[in-house]
Amino acid sequence: MASTRASPNTKHVVIVGAGFGGLYAAKALSRDPAFRVTVIDKRNYHLFQPLLYQVATGKLAPSDIATPVRHVLRGRPNVRVVQGAAVDLDPAARQVILNGGVRIDYDILIAATGVKHSYFGNDAWRENAPGLKTIEHALEMRQRIFSAFEAAELSEDAAEQARLTTFVVVGAGPTGVELAGAIGELARHTLKDEFHHIDTGRSRIVLAEGAAQVLPSYPADLAAAAAKSLAQLGVEVMTGTLVTHIDGDGVRLKRPDGREEAIEARTVLWAAGVRASQFGQTLARRVDCKLDRAGKVEVNADLSLPAHPEIFVIGDLSHYAPAGGQALPGVAPVAMQEGDYVARLLKARQRGRALPPFRYRNQGSMAVIGRHAAVGDLRFVHVKGVVAWYLWVLVHMMGLIEFGNRLVVMTRWAWNYLTRNSGSRLITSVPEARTDHADRAHRSGR
Amino acid sequence: MASTRASPNTKHVVIVGAGFGGLYAAKALSRDPAFRVTVIDKRNYHLFQPLLYQVATGKLAPSDIATPVRHVLRGRPNVRVVQGAAVDLDPAARQVILNGGVRIDYDILIAATGVKHSYFGNDAWRENAPGLKTIEHALEMRQRIFSAFEAAELSEDAAEQARLTTFVVVGAGPTGVELAGAIGELARHTLKDEFHHIDTGRSRIVLAEGAAQVLPSYPADLAAAAAKSLAQLGVEVMTGTLVTHIDGDGVRLKRPDGREEAIEARTVLWAAGVRASQFGQTLARRVDCKLDRAGKVEVNADLSLPAHPEIFVIGDLSHYAPAGGQALPGVAPVAMQEGDYVARLLKARQRGRALPPFRYRNQGSMAVIGRHAAVGDLRFVHVKGVVAWYLWVLVHMMGLIEFGNRLVVMTRWAWNYLTRNSGSRLITSVPEARTDHADRAHRSGR
Repeated sequence: MASTRASPNTKHVVIVGAGFGGLYAAKALSRDPAFRVTVIDKRNYHLFQPLLYQVATGKLAPSDIATPVRHVLRGRPNVRVVQGAAVDLDPAARQVILNGGVRIDYDILIAATGVKHSYFGNDAWRENAPGLKTIEHALEMRQRIFSAFEAAELSEDAAEQARLTTFVVVGAGPTGVELAGAIGELARHTLKDEFHHIDTGRSRIVLAEGAAQVLPSYPADLAAAAAKSLAQLGVEVMTGTLVTHIDGDGVRLKRPDGREEAIEARTVLWAAGVRASQFGQTLARRVDCKLDRAGKVEVNADLSLPAHPEIFVIGDLSHYAPAGGQALPGVAPVAMQEGDYVARLLKARQRGRALPPFRYRNQGSMAVIGRHAAVGDLRFVHVKGVVAWYLWVLVHMMGLIEFGNRLVVMTRWAWNYLTRNSGSRLITSVPEARTDHADRAHRSGR
Repeated sequence: MASTRASPNTKHVVIVGAGFGGLYAAKALSRDPAFRVTVIDKRNYHLFQPLLYQVATGKLAPSDIATPVRHVLRGRPNVRVVQGAAVDLDPAARQVILNGGVRIDYDILIAATGVKHSYFGNDAWRENAPGLKTIEHALEMRQRIFSAFEAAELSEDAAEQARLTTFVVVGAGPTGVELAGAIGELARHTLKDEFHHIDTGRSRIVLAEGAAQVLPSYPADLAAAAAKSLAQLGVEVMTGTLVTHIDGDGVRLKRPDGREEAIEARTVLWAAGVRASQFGQTLARRVDCKLDRAGKVEVNADLSLPAHPEIFVIGDLSHYAPAGGQALPGVAPVAMQEGDYVARLLKARQRGRALPPFRYRNQGSMAVIGRHAAVGDLRFVHVKGVVAWYLWVLVHMMGLIEFGNRLVVMTRWAWNYLTRNSGSRLITSVPEARTDHADRAHRSGR
């Protein structure tokens, strides 16, 4: 469809996934008459994932960190947006196939569908330990966190109250640290005066990590600073600790000394691992390419597939190890730079030129623990505490501005900052009716 | 439970429902040492229902119009908040029974659980015509509205596109008028430049009403002004029109001339009728009281039940017809004044005094159609257009301030006003996991 409108010289670039990588590629290709761009996403919005933990802990509303893709890409006449799930690929016909059967022709395909969380084979843990990759996950976490306090307030049994106000976060990467810190703030400050039967300040918050330090990818001094800030918020950090079991009663842990320990906890949150989204396997099934252990697609130095110069894989879905080095981390700046690179490469190809291999310019990474507490590894300088926190706010504000959510978030943050309140603590439940709108529309539309 | 803490002179007032009526009663009784108050609600938040249509149409986020009940009632040591569903009553023991079996003693019971929407016996219409009483309903409507445009953008068939971009709103009371007007604004302004295949400005929006005018409870001149504003937004107003059938294809209408007319529409929204919430029937089952046709509980002139001076029914759940007059309308000001009245009455009783019967001080009513278009019936003066719109914004802002949502909504509204954008257009789907948190917590807590 739609390819009938293409002039013979115009390349049709189809981008699957409207995350950081996909949107950067689309923006960089827009306004260049040599290209038509179609962005496909199963959601109608771009999600600013680094702030998802703030939705999970009731600090922000979903729409504060999510912008309609159409709105981000408005006013770019050569960019079309399609809401739909890309479920298959026909590489011979050069077509992406959507759920419902719609086929979209491409000259160039950019796969940027990201990752989902993974339980390392223990899928039974999912029911009792939700992860955090989507708005729905964040609302699910929010629901669990706040209804645990509500249930504790109603309980008359001290042991039961303790179980209800015990929170275990599995995995102390940035997301786990941010979640544990935010729950600490909720329990110690935000909710402190709102309950009569329980003292939320006595909640137990455990952060379990298999590596020897929190923030395993950070330098040791920053990890130590983060651990100290977590302790100040009442978070028990357990490093060198493996989770061996999760069920409705809580978790079982294996501590560094080999001892087994059970923690009774109503609320267990999963921040421990990711694996590639389904579209990676679709690619592997249809074209000649290799997946790594996490299902990510291995790419050339120009981010294309070895046997398919017309197919690119970028962002978290991509496995790219610069010559002799480690694979690039799954963070927003990598995805953005990759999206930008592929757009420049395509423009160069149109002019018959080539580009040097993709090179990631690492501008550092930051994690926030709580109010006035963050750490930043800025390559040549390590920042901690208040300075790092203000820098974190600045960087994320600029990121949100780019995607059009500035004013409301700034207001909400300013308000939360001044009052220590957090106003998005609704426990919403499931809409009563159908969930398969897009499917139905396509079926009925055919 | 909890009654063990009561001193013999303190009356325990249990309020079921944290809507406008329940919260006004709780606030008015707080800080009076003669009372202990327990507020029970199945949600953890108070919902500012008059703005629910703005959540449904993507102008506001759910948390913009919903405030945690604990937060509204914080700092009032004699007020306890319980999240739970009141499913039964034991009037002999003076106990409210929660889902899960928890019993809460009361000396005084105030029932304020409001209404839900009703299909006048045609419950099969529910699946294809959601109503608007809860956050979940609003998100369901939002999902339907925006995914209809998305599906139309993908369709290649003109008739199908027309069906997908036809919206029928059933019922032209304030909610129906506000919904239809907001969809008109979306289609004509907000979404206008964001689609490539379809012209959202050509969407068909039908507002069907059985009475002879829109806003049937308003004076004729204001109804005419509202109809004119709706027409300017492209809304087809069909008065004197009954809906005879709703299914997945659209609606069938009976027009004033007796003619049957079918409208093919993917999206049908229900704003036509309400009936009392379940707790009204619980009351009727357990104590001697009468329900009206809509299931509302008939009350004395002091809002108590005829045979039970210790049980009051207020707000939308209450049917109170002042001597010789019509029953009071189901609007927020009535509920607020009733909550306030019952609190004053209880305080008077403690001092051995009486109060005259409840009297509603009608300060008028307002409905908004779109940007710069509203109507207000302020008893002695009728206002229309821009003036009415600014007044509407002022009144609702003051209402929100009272419940603590001021700053963010003000920012979002200012932003929407300046840009005509609306930033909360996420189509979120259903969380994957359990929905019965409160239930489980109670069961596991017992």
